[in-house]
Amino acid sequence: MSQLTAADTDAPLGVFDSGLGGLTVVRALREALPSESIVYLGDTARVPYGTKGASTVIKYALGCARHLVARKVKAIIVACNTVSAVAPERLRVELDIPVLGVIEPGARAAVAATRTGRIGVLATAGTIASGAYPRAVAQVSTRAEVIGQAAPLLVPLAEEGWTAGEVPRLVVRRYIEPLALARADVVLLGCTHYPLLREVIEAEVRARIGPDVAVVDSATAMAAGVRDFLEARGMARKATGAGVVQLLVTDLPRTFRETAARFLGGEVGEVEQVDL
Amino acid sequence: MSQLTAADTDAPLGVFDSGLGGLTVVRALREALPSESIVYLGDTARVPYGTKGASTVIKYALGCARHLVARKVKAIIVACNTVSAVAPERLRVELDIPVLGVIEPGARAAVAATRTGRIGVLATAGTIASGAYPRAVAQVSTRAEVIGQAAPLLVPLAEEGWTAGEVPRLVVRRYIEPLALARADVVLLGCTHYPLLREVIEAEVRARIGPDVAVVDSATAMAAGVRDFLEARGMARKATGAGVVQLLVTDLPRTFRETAARFLGGEVGEVEQVDL
Repeated sequence: MSQLTAADTDAPLGVFDSGLGGLTVVRALREALPSESIVYLGDTARVPYGTKGASTVIKYALGCARHLVARKVKAIIVACNTVSAVAPERLRVELDIPVLGVIEPGARAAVAATRTGRIGVLATAGTIASGAYPRAVAQVSTRAEVIGQAAPLLVPLAEEGWTAGEVPRLVVRRYIEPLALARADVVLLGCTHYPLLREVIEAEVRARIGPDVAVVDSATAMAAGVRDFLEARGMARKATGAGVVQLLVTDLPRTFRETAARFLGGEVGEVEQVDL
Repeated sequence: MSQLTAADTDAPLGVFDSGLGGLTVVRALREALPSESIVYLGDTARVPYGTKGASTVIKYALGCARHLVARKVKAIIVACNTVSAVAPERLRVELDIPVLGVIEPGARAAVAATRTGRIGVLATAGTIASGAYPRAVAQVSTRAEVIGQAAPLLVPLAEEGWTAGEVPRLVVRRYIEPLALARADVVLLGCTHYPLLREVIEAEVRARIGPDVAVVDSATAMAAGVRDFLEARGMARKATGAGVVQLLVTDLPRTFRETAARFLGGEVGEVEQVDL
């Protein structure tokens, strides 16, 4: 990649996800990199990707990424584990700008947190089936192993806002049972929707697996990875002042603002609907 | 519509849905009309429609319906409540063949079953927001009223196969609470996914609302409506022998056959993947 000019470093980061889950990454990026501007594209018309096959996910991801490139972003941040699991190489081949996935930073954070080497991963069916987390963990550590568990109900629970009480507790309990049996000492939240259920997941993990088991969040790990990447390449924004966040979606149902505010952890500004 | 020829009456019925939920309608059609052939199109790449806005749903529905028309079906059966709620008029304007939605037969069956006139409807957020059930019920009865309840978690529960036990029971209990408060005497399953949860729903409805409350299934009501329609128009298949079912999907994840068999209630034959 060629050296970026000052104007380029002021360009926004392009973040995309299958829906609104990636807003938890935007939230973490705002905390880690408050002066960066962000264009977020949520493919809400075709959400979820997690239950779909690889070729469909790749086709949709290319559409999202090309739209962001046309808006002159300086890097593409794939805030979707499912896309990061199956499409990053294809995106890197097709696009002329850096593409950062969410799997590697999550895997690195999990390896850093484990003592026994047994890492439990909760993710969508698509991410688990791809084997992306075992591969990413193997690249960082030869002694760590991954116990993967598909947890399809956590996405609709997070989107519904059912993040506390008996139903999410029982659903989480059922999903972490295999991780408890395998005595994982780290549970990685391998889907950007899951931080909304973090309290329930942490409580169940501590009660059912062990009080010292760490819950690692791929959104936070991703934001730290993006900061390191921008600094190492001299791509961080030079201008001072807070960055702005622009939201693009492919569908605009009536509950959009309410759901988006829940993910972003605050008020939602202008939203533009785009047709991919 | 012009009179159909003998060849036309032998043409298959075209059934489509956002995903696999509509296979419960195929199952009901096979029971009501065993000699009819069926081409089923599940838009599994873009499932679910129920959480999406009306313009997106209409765009996707037109794509599905045109694909079936190109395959020479004799009628389009919209086996998706969300599409039936927002798109049937548009489909009727755009297409040259009959279009049958799932809302009217369901509404008629619910009106036939109610004594008090208080009809509870469980459906997706999109169907409830559209107001389609109150409109359809008002066309059949001036004294019946609809208490609508969006139940977004029932679709992923049915797709996951979590159709028995504590989790579906608690989820259903929460969704039917407003119907119990309004003392509904009929609960209409206004989404083609829900018949998979019928046992849990019936048990909860009887325990929480009342032992005589009827649970009405829109898939069964739809199949009876299609039979009446074909007979009234002389469009029923003349040839003897069992009809065949052809399955088309827009995405083919690895768990497809297992999920499809659950909905169809038996083995799944050849499946073709199509690009809309």
